[in-house]
Amino acid sequence: MNSPIAPNSLRNVRIVLLETSHPGNIGAVARAMKVMGLSDLHLVNPKCDVNDEARARASGAVDVLDNAQIHTTLETALADTVLAAASTSRRRDLPHPAYTPRQAAPEILQLAAQDRVAIVFGSETFGLSNEQLMKCRWLINIPTNPDYASLNLGAAVQVMAYELRSSLADTPLELPEFELAPHAAVESMLTEMEHMLIEIGFLDPQHPKRLMPRLRRFFAKAGLEKEEVAIWRGILGATKKRPNRAPGA
Amino acid sequence: MNSPIAPNSLRNVRIVLLETSHPGNIGAVARAMKVMGLSDLHLVNPKCDVNDEARARASGAVDVLDNAQIHTTLETALADTVLAAASTSRRRDLPHPAYTPRQAAPEILQLAAQDRVAIVFGSETFGLSNEQLMKCRWLINIPTNPDYASLNLGAAVQVMAYELRSSLADTPLELPEFELAPHAAVESMLTEMEHMLIEIGFLDPQHPKRLMPRLRRFFAKAGLEKEEVAIWRGILGATKKRPNRAPGA
Repeated sequence: MNSPIAPNSLRNVRIVLLETSHPGNIGAVARAMKVMGLSDLHLVNPKCDVNDEARARASGAVDVLDNAQIHTTLETALADTVLAAASTSRRRDLPHPAYTPRQAAPEILQLAAQDRVAIVFGSETFGLSNEQLMKCRWLINIPTNPDYASLNLGAAVQVMAYELRSSLADTPLELPEFELAPHAAVESMLTEMEHMLIEIGFLDPQHPKRLMPRLRRFFAKAGLEKEEVAIWRGILGATKKRPNRAPGA
Repeated sequence: MNSPIAPNSLRNVRIVLLETSHPGNIGAVARAMKVMGLSDLHLVNPKCDVNDEARARASGAVDVLDNAQIHTTLETALADTVLAAASTSRRRDLPHPAYTPRQAAPEILQLAAQDRVAIVFGSETFGLSNEQLMKCRWLINIPTNPDYASLNLGAAVQVMAYELRSSLADTPLELPEFELAPHAAVESMLTEMEHMLIEIGFLDPQHPKRLMPRLRRFFAKAGLEKEEVAIWRGILGATKKRPNRAPGA
């Protein structure tokens, strides 16, 4: 794999594991990552220790385990990423754009040439909650046997990491023309927008219906750039300072 | 998966494990196979029992373990197959044609539509001997990190099985079907937005700069749907009717 895009792109792909229960799976994930050239592992609220079993399963990838960062919230694990993609078997009930690993890999590699991209994996038993999924912009559905779709966590990471490495050679180096906004900036703008919508009486916090999820999906599709976040914040700020008008004017 | 080639092809792909040492790996292989629709597992001279650890790691794929056939020679495990492909990290010192999983999968599926095909995996520690490799027609090299190429046995089978399933139909993923907004509705919403931006003092019609072109581009990227246009018109309408506030409030 001698594409110049290669080393940085893989280095910028972050694997985020949410509420993992089994140390062996965390070790298997570390090994699955390193064998394909990934190294950035983040654990959100792990439900187990990174113990000897994890280290045994990590084999020669103990360095990935040792460098793993631990978070108490998904937010902080995603804060500096420009794209969060959720690996999930769910599909129909969610409004996110959904891709197979093969469809997603080239675009992930493009983005990761200069920015961080996260791929998020839920817990072994419960997967990802709706709330966790709403923080992600894409879904990735690994194709499986409809009669038995229970992919092991380490195996799912292995498939995704393999797909990224396999797609490397085919991905032309085209740096994006615009700077994508980091996750934290998008979230903060969305919070400000929610407050504005409440203030203008369009969003009833007692009966929010599906307004914010629909708007989240809309902004996720667009892929906000830094300058666009600045524009939206400007619009929101101007709305707040809007001059008075006579009633009925 | 609606390709007619699908069910038979996967059913006819045999996974052959040689001299495996760890029961957990045999269980992981069974699960990796079933989750992608494979079921035909053959063990040649296993160096361990198919015990409780194997069954635990197999999870819902215990049936694949229970139906596994055990052989004393590689010969008998390959006897009724039309192609044996060896998964190995070796390459240069061997005369076999070598393929990546992606290159090999379509041809394997073609053959497996009516005949049995074997994919052979060596022991965890020693891989495949020259003698064993010579029984195989093809090599399959899974692309890996040159600095750490130690792919776990279960992970290697998972990658190969995933590649077979993914190559099956090039299954187009069912994207959620929403109704895109007609051009005129988008234009009318954008005009209304422009008026609102002027009204709140964010857009100066004398010096509009690049604001509207940037917003147009943003909405174009998102690909507005009918329902989303309705949401944005609602927001614009609510902004206009916004109640008065005291100056400086």
